[in-house]
Amino acid sequence: MRKILNQPDKAVPEMLSGMAKAHAGIIEVLPGTQAVVRADAPVRGKVALITGGGSGHEPAHGGFVGKGMLDAALAGAVFCSPPLDDAIASLERVDGGAGVLFIIKNYTGDILLFDMAEEEAADRGIPVRKALVADDVAVDDREGTTGRRGVAGTVLVHKIAGAMADRGASLDDVHRVAMKVIENVRTMGMALTPCLVPGRDKPNFELAPGEMEIGIGIHGEPGVRREPLKSAREIVSEMMDRITGDLPFKAGDRVVAMVNGMGATPLMELYVIYNEVESYLAGKGIAVARPMVGEYMTSLEMAGFSITLLRADDELLSLFDHPCAAPAWRQA
Amino acid sequence: MRKILNQPDKAVPEMLSGMAKAHAGIIEVLPGTQAVVRADAPVRGKVALITGGGSGHEPAHGGFVGKGMLDAALAGAVFCSPPLDDAIASLERVDGGAGVLFIIKNYTGDILLFDMAEEEAADRGIPVRKALVADDVAVDDREGTTGRRGVAGTVLVHKIAGAMADRGASLDDVHRVAMKVIENVRTMGMALTPCLVPGRDKPNFELAPGEMEIGIGIHGEPGVRREPLKSAREIVSEMMDRITGDLPFKAGDRVVAMVNGMGATPLMELYVIYNEVESYLAGKGIAVARPMVGEYMTSLEMAGFSITLLRADDELLSLFDHPCAAPAWRQA
Repeated sequence: MRKILNQPDKAVPEMLSGMAKAHAGIIEVLPGTQAVVRADAPVRGKVALITGGGSGHEPAHGGFVGKGMLDAALAGAVFCSPPLDDAIASLERVDGGAGVLFIIKNYTGDILLFDMAEEEAADRGIPVRKALVADDVAVDDREGTTGRRGVAGTVLVHKIAGAMADRGASLDDVHRVAMKVIENVRTMGMALTPCLVPGRDKPNFELAPGEMEIGIGIHGEPGVRREPLKSAREIVSEMMDRITGDLPFKAGDRVVAMVNGMGATPLMELYVIYNEVESYLAGKGIAVARPMVGEYMTSLEMAGFSITLLRADDELLSLFDHPCAAPAWRQA
Repeated sequence: MRKILNQPDKAVPEMLSGMAKAHAGIIEVLPGTQAVVRADAPVRGKVALITGGGSGHEPAHGGFVGKGMLDAALAGAVFCSPPLDDAIASLERVDGGAGVLFIIKNYTGDILLFDMAEEEAADRGIPVRKALVADDVAVDDREGTTGRRGVAGTVLVHKIAGAMADRGASLDDVHRVAMKVIENVRTMGMALTPCLVPGRDKPNFELAPGEMEIGIGIHGEPGVRREPLKSAREIVSEMMDRITGDLPFKAGDRVVAMVNGMGATPLMELYVIYNEVESYLAGKGIAVARPMVGEYMTSLEMAGFSITLLRADDELLSLFDHPCAAPAWRQA
């Protein structure tokens, strides 16, 4: 694990500078902050969507800022929650007078940040609703005090709630579809290698060749169990059993199926994995209405992937298909 | 380097199956072949574009098949030229009566394949023109008998010639813009790690931590020299000196600037690199008219990147901007 950077402590601001230059006209970085905002914010009369969290998950979340998706994405240091000042600056920049939805991944630091930001919004008379994403089925509620982690399913909350806001819906309605996605989305991940935070000497866990870690999170944290590496078919089957059993997903359901690369897994492997996911679902009578294969929420240079399933009805699919200008959004 | 696959020798067909399922309606795999073709081929009256080469460079080339780009992409085994039978089957499927352009990366096996395919086309009365891409400035003409390698700049040939064909241009005109891109595009790559062909025991070269290899190709071949790992700024400066000095690119030029990940390099690093590329060019008075940051032509799980510059005039930029349905094409 070797990195092409200038200085570890400059990696996030320099990345954000590169993003803003590469996607000029769509996004910009708020001066003095690490917040990515829509270049045309505020959009008067539209509900604004703000999310945020640690960096290291690119393209999440800055790549999902743009018309039809997010209005602002706060970028903390790698795997660290963003500062309150950036949340306040973003609120003031993107509030269009119709209220703000906070989309929050279920981590203690992020929850605390957005609780404080909600108070700041109240001081400014800005109505706020919150949507807490906790889609990782690898972690049972009983295993930790904070419950399930928010992972790649968060991208679908951004997309669908963002489309609802773009259509001019009220804050209550945007919040309603965000919660509908959250109730119907499930994710699980695995890794072949850990990742390394810039500036650190060693990763949070080690894996020997021929081993894999099932149930990893997106912050370099180890998974729920270690096993010998199996075939793509066996790995997918094991993960899909857990995911589909959780909601549960049933024959006749239509789903959005996302195979998400964790950062260092070649597209060749992601397509081999998707091939297995589609076959598994076909065997259960579940139809993939919208496939997604690529990198949506990564963990630096971790090798591995996650599978996300969203049970979708006509309303959610219509919002999924709504046009979107965010640089990293890709329907497939 | 560990892989999530079923069997190494099934990796390519299973990947193609996954691609076709994920992008149904846009692409399909010709039965009995490893050729990806437009689902709506042939398009009557349109010049057809066919490319191909070894697998392991995903999303190239199958991800660039679709309206406004390629009509067919032949996928060989990993890093091996495709078979003639697949070329013949593709010719017969995509020929729309207006002739066919072959886009060929400069490797002996690929050239031989398309020479044979040209004879087969002649037997069938199908007019063919060929465009040979040799954009890698790391390799001097004098260093090998075959000259410069064709690398990531090939994607811009696909895009721009594909747009010209989509506008209804003649075979001569489609060939003319393909050659115009080829004359004006230059690329150079570097790596931090090698890659491993599925089923093999070890990579073609090894790199110690703290080393980098400058001038690598896209087939796991070593570069032109090995150096201690430097900062992103120093690496970019060294590569850009070579690229811009080659054409040469001059103050006042407008360019398409692509930062292409080789497979395992996180988007965070690619944006840090793009930030340096843009600064370097600004310092030379060269304007980035169209930035591209992402994975376009990879080398399995190699960590590293390439930089491609295309000197573009109004005609090339207009074709660059032409709408495109290929799954992996992404502007911005």
